Amino acid sequence: MSTAIPSEMRVLALGNYYEDLNDAIQNLRVTQKPTPQPGPGQVLVQIAAAPCNPSDLVFIQGLYGVTKTLPAVPGWEGAGTVVASGGGVIANWLKGKRVACGGQSESDGTWADYYLADAKTCVPLRKNISFEEGASLIVNPLTAWALIDEAKKGKHRGIVQTAAASQLGRMILHLATDAEIPLVNIVRRQEQEDILKSLGAEFVLNSASDNFEEQLRNACHRLRTTICFDAVSGDMTGMVLNAMPERSTVIVYGVLSYSPAGGIDGRELIFGQKQVKSFWLTPWIRSAGILRIYQAFGQIQNRIADGSFATHVRQKLKLEDVPSGLMEYQRQMTSGKILIAPQQG
Amino acid sequence: MSTAIPSEMRVLALGNYYEDLNDAIQNLRVTQKPTPQPGPGQVLVQIAAAPCNPSDLVFIQGLYGVTKTLPAVPGWEGAGTVVASGGGVIANWLKGKRVACGGQSESDGTWADYYLADAKTCVPLRKNISFEEGASLIVNPLTAWALIDEAKKGKHRGIVQTAAASQLGRMILHLATDAEIPLVNIVRRQEQEDILKSLGAEFVLNSASDNFEEQLRNACHRLRTTICFDAVSGDMTGMVLNAMPERSTVIVYGVLSYSPAGGIDGRELIFGQKQVKSFWLTPWIRSAGILRIYQAFGQIQNRIADGSFATHVRQKLKLEDVPSGLMEYQRQMTSGKILIAPQQG
Repeated sequence: MSTAIPSEMRVLALGNYYEDLNDAIQNLRVTQKPTPQPGPGQVLVQIAAAPCNPSDLVFIQGLYGVTKTLPAVPGWEGAGTVVASGGGVIANWLKGKRVACGGQSESDGTWADYYLADAKTCVPLRKNISFEEGASLIVNPLTAWALIDEAKKGKHRGIVQTAAASQLGRMILHLATDAEIPLVNIVRRQEQEDILKSLGAEFVLNSASDNFEEQLRNACHRLRTTICFDAVSGDMTGMVLNAMPERSTVIVYGVLSYSPAGGIDGRELIFGQKQVKSFWLTPWIRSAGILRIYQAFGQIQNRIADGSFATHVRQKLKLEDVPSGLMEYQRQMTSGKILIAPQQG
Repeated sequence: MSTAIPSEMRVLALGNYYEDLNDAIQNLRVTQKPTPQPGPGQVLVQIAAAPCNPSDLVFIQGLYGVTKTLPAVPGWEGAGTVVASGGGVIANWLKGKRVACGGQSESDGTWADYYLADAKTCVPLRKNISFEEGASLIVNPLTAWALIDEAKKGKHRGIVQTAAASQLGRMILHLATDAEIPLVNIVRRQEQEDILKSLGAEFVLNSASDNFEEQLRNACHRLRTTICFDAVSGDMTGMVLNAMPERSTVIVYGVLSYSPAGGIDGRELIFGQKQVKSFWLTPWIRSAGILRIYQAFGQIQNRIADGSFATHVRQKLKLEDVPSGLMEYQRQMTSGKILIAPQQG
């Protein structure tokens, strides 16, 4: 790894938002930009690896809660080495360290040679955690941790989750098992059912099966699942809320179906005293407080080190190979993650 | 009014629940039943007037949150004279008094000559309030009061309501005006627009107009309406939630559209940190505490006495004329209420 910082860096830049995902991906271009200079309290991270998460795809479609001035550099998280400090106790202390970094701000993201980070938001990586592993330390693990924390605080006796075979869904499975909270996992394909069972999931339902709604209702009532983490939205939101017992809450945290949440039976809503809420990591981080987040990152690094939060990487791609790799990725999201490795090859 | 209590009374009985409302109405029959004997803490109320509310129609369809053993006597509220006490301080004190009464229990309702009431739930009527007025003292006024109380406690700067021309919607209009909270009223017909404007409503939107969604969005953002009281459900729920500013809540309290709540944009839900909740009077009464409910009834009786909570009565019907009257009523619900007057004629 070079210590001489070049004045220009390569980034993967988005010239325009396109609601059509294929159009958006095909319009990502490798371009040159001046390497940013860290100011006080900031550090410059040489990116070793940055993942492509579903929230990155939603961002390049212009559908995310944060938009950046175009041309924009996507990438909400990554890992690398701190190569420069702009001054300040934390920033100086981080210099030379391996860190996970990220943040959903309007400035340039991690899909680049270098990333300008707020020193306070960098997480030093333990020795036994690789860049590949550290690259996905924030978005998915922290979301899973925060959702399970919500279930614990609400003293929910059981949980349902949709899109359970996703990377995030598997983390929720591990954390729910740790917390000894029964978890009903909803998937939509047989292979996903098999994966989850191999990971120790006890209750797995396939939404494509004939009597899915009846099975779901039975499982939810038997296990008293009064909270659902829903990454799918669309009719799935209503289907789960209707199936759950009284005083249940569905927390929508994703829109994988790209459909508006619906099918919510008014009788269930009113007489069942149910509700639909949502979760978004950005305001959660702002309100959680630094100590709680450090507690979360401690547990997350343990989990990554012991292999249970393994993010299955399908492909490591150089910046210029990302568009073609993403075209392939978005056709089959559960079979592993794309990792962007700007320094590779 | 007779003080001799007959051993048998006439009731309007429902033999079966029918999801088809016409079928349900046509199967209401006047039958004889033994007049109930009040036990300790109970009183017998000779019903002078009992309204037919939307929640009664939902009940006879078997779609309400409370079901009764069949044959069942509908009627969630009414007014009359306490003609017998089963003993106890409150019950004895009520004897001879004019009261409003009701309750969403599994026992027989108010569509009958006599109603067996829990003494604690009877509200003595002030002299200047007639039986006709007192008959609708509970369901609609208490719901309106509780919803506005929710808006006040949540410090919401503005409110939206759907089905704004309903009896309940008009009460919400008066209470919001009192509380000086701007209220966006959604109706679906020109005549309803006119009615609300004549009652002093400042912001009235017609959902049938071409650019309704744009108007709604503009009004919600300008007035910072962060809470909506929704009696309609269906796509209206999503339409309003999507149009409201960040951190908004839709409270569904009715299903007048008979459609599942839907059309909820996942981006608005997640990035707007919005939510859908519900309101049901029965658990609210249980949890509100007697002092708060008495405070509410004090204000409600003031409102009824000064005419602003006037429930427009379209027809007073003897028990045997109710089915034909209801058939007519359910075709045009906003043009006045049906009042059942068992002692009439």
